[in-house]
Amino acid sequence: MTTHITLSKRALALTSSAIREILKVTERPEVVSFAGGLPSPATFPVERMREASNRVLTDAPHAALQYGPTEGFLPLREWVAAHLTRNGAEVSPGRVLITTGSQQGLDLLGKALIDEGSKVLVETPSYLGALQAFSLFQPNFVPMASDGQGIQTDALDADTLDGARFMYCLPNFQNPTGRRLPLERRKALVERAAGAGVPVVEDDPYGELYYSGAPLPSLLSFNPEGGVYMGSFSKVLAPGLRLGYVVAPEPLFAKLVQAKQASDLHTPSFSQRMVHAVIQDGFLDQHIPVIRDLYARQCALMMAALEKHFPAEAKWDRPEGGMFIWVTLPEGIDTGELLLKAIAQNVAFVPGAPFFAGNPMRNTLRLSFVTVPAEKIDAGMEVLGNLVKAEIAALQVAA
Amino acid sequence: MTTHITLSKRALALTSSAIREILKVTERPEVVSFAGGLPSPATFPVERMREASNRVLTDAPHAALQYGPTEGFLPLREWVAAHLTRNGAEVSPGRVLITTGSQQGLDLLGKALIDEGSKVLVETPSYLGALQAFSLFQPNFVPMASDGQGIQTDALDADTLDGARFMYCLPNFQNPTGRRLPLERRKALVERAAGAGVPVVEDDPYGELYYSGAPLPSLLSFNPEGGVYMGSFSKVLAPGLRLGYVVAPEPLFAKLVQAKQASDLHTPSFSQRMVHAVIQDGFLDQHIPVIRDLYARQCALMMAALEKHFPAEAKWDRPEGGMFIWVTLPEGIDTGELLLKAIAQNVAFVPGAPFFAGNPMRNTLRLSFVTVPAEKIDAGMEVLGNLVKAEIAALQVAA
Repeated sequence: MTTHITLSKRALALTSSAIREILKVTERPEVVSFAGGLPSPATFPVERMREASNRVLTDAPHAALQYGPTEGFLPLREWVAAHLTRNGAEVSPGRVLITTGSQQGLDLLGKALIDEGSKVLVETPSYLGALQAFSLFQPNFVPMASDGQGIQTDALDADTLDGARFMYCLPNFQNPTGRRLPLERRKALVERAAGAGVPVVEDDPYGELYYSGAPLPSLLSFNPEGGVYMGSFSKVLAPGLRLGYVVAPEPLFAKLVQAKQASDLHTPSFSQRMVHAVIQDGFLDQHIPVIRDLYARQCALMMAALEKHFPAEAKWDRPEGGMFIWVTLPEGIDTGELLLKAIAQNVAFVPGAPFFAGNPMRNTLRLSFVTVPAEKIDAGMEVLGNLVKAEIAALQVAA
Repeated sequence: MTTHITLSKRALALTSSAIREILKVTERPEVVSFAGGLPSPATFPVERMREASNRVLTDAPHAALQYGPTEGFLPLREWVAAHLTRNGAEVSPGRVLITTGSQQGLDLLGKALIDEGSKVLVETPSYLGALQAFSLFQPNFVPMASDGQGIQTDALDADTLDGARFMYCLPNFQNPTGRRLPLERRKALVERAAGAGVPVVEDDPYGELYYSGAPLPSLLSFNPEGGVYMGSFSKVLAPGLRLGYVVAPEPLFAKLVQAKQASDLHTPSFSQRMVHAVIQDGFLDQHIPVIRDLYARQCALMMAALEKHFPAEAKWDRPEGGMFIWVTLPEGIDTGELLLKAIAQNVAFVPGAPFFAGNPMRNTLRLSFVTVPAEKIDAGMEVLGNLVKAEIAALQVAA
């Protein structure tokens, strides 16, 4: 029997990503992929996970396998609150909502804060997954001017801020640019947003992954009563458990809980208890430095390969943490087309255009280095560097 | 610093449930609660879960802890397709989307199919969680006439069907009524819906929980190419893993996948693999009969207690499966008020009103029996029966 399905306007507006389709070939083992956004599985604490899962299924099997509270497993909420408080933003467990990955936090914020046409301020560029999550609620994205250090807070004028439902920020080692917002800009950003009555939504999956020195204070720490903060266990433990959290003030918190109840009732009880069993005794204090060191080493290899193989016309910054390097090529080069040529030579990356809410810079690209075998980095970057040189030469011939 | 948060229209329309607050007291151990919608933890196969989790973390730890495909773990999708095909609806794995509990399937369907004001047909009464999930997308609910056997298919006229985005049905042991839609009505329903071009969304968490005899064919089996089907592992295995699935035709399937990607990227890899490890060798064929037997015994105790303690003016049907009994009291009795009196005597149930999308029948209530200790059923029902008798007596005095 035929069935006629009428899709919602928001579903019709969803476009399938051509890049996603292209990048499926990167799963072939012969491809050197700088395209991944995945943490390195070498850092997953498998043995501890197994111990924790056994412990949970021994100590509290029925609770771990039964429905649980929408807000999350209380001891895990308490851990998050204590962790954030230790990092300088005083948070109570009653303000912590455990989510099914940090991505769900974005969906819930979209549900609670965005009407069709609502103004939402985003970075230039911003995290693609957030743009997708918010898009379902049909906002009017307004990109904030950004430079190599992130949001240009001087440009946050009354016009830009006026009437915005919220400002979405990734101050630490942003996906895709790897940028970290400097201390002075953090203060200025929170002040200007608060002055205009615009809530700041701080998405911070990479904040712990600084390569050296000390972390910068979170945006939340400048306004612990008024900010929204999103964290994740994906990059410091393992993403396959899908565990994140949102911290929000009332009355938003209550609405997020109601929206979550409608969305998936609650995050799996078993994985919440398992992660709590893994981290409760301070494990992350020993574990995260291992991840930092690995990523710093991989980043150094990438930097060396960039210097060696990329031409002077290409620009990039040295990340101070996280998983990504952002490269800007001369104008006129389309990295979407460059990707096709790279894949023909078994090298992959992510073109920058989809990360822009407004006018895309088609001459940008994102490189991830954390899952590429160290011995393949130089060879892969050589291929990519040669392709970039050829593109530049072609531009010069055309000019 | 103050932060002014403007909530979305949909968030403002969310109301916190007074009943949910009242029912929090049912967690006190002295309360005999017929309010639960929880499966019995006595049936959770804890030992097999532990074996499975160990096996997964030994055989494929990195894949289990890493990001995975949005559609779900392929062997689990294949299992679902084979299971549904065995039950009479030929389904290919490419049409199966694994969801974070069946509740997420409702959210994704809302995202993909509902615009503000879209007509959505629902049963009278219907599953509260679905009404909540769909409500976030601001549909116009149109209740379908229903009786003790479920949807009255004769009443599904052109006017009712015209322009509906979809029809939401729970044909097996519906929450809250426990009703099962008879075979002839199933055929008629699928035919009338298809004739009017209205997609049928079949929500089937309880279909396997028939107490005796054989299951009735699914609505999907009458239209395998055109129907949407939702299933869950919550009631046949354990809800704390939050695993469900949606089967949908193209182009809806692709939109559901995109919506899911924006909502939580994917359902936890670890729990998908764990459940697959538990069920792959046919475990559910031995396990589900154990659940059926337990629930049939508990239901029989409830039936006996209803006959013994409830007055002739109260009406109910004998469920043929599932977890719920629906009781209708004489008009004029408000079960919301009855609940307060019952809780004062340490007995709880769920009033029927919130399950209605249209005019609520305030004289109805839902009783669940699966988690109540057998030895407490009679005493709890005696309290409730006496309260009902008192209400009826008071009505008669007033009249």
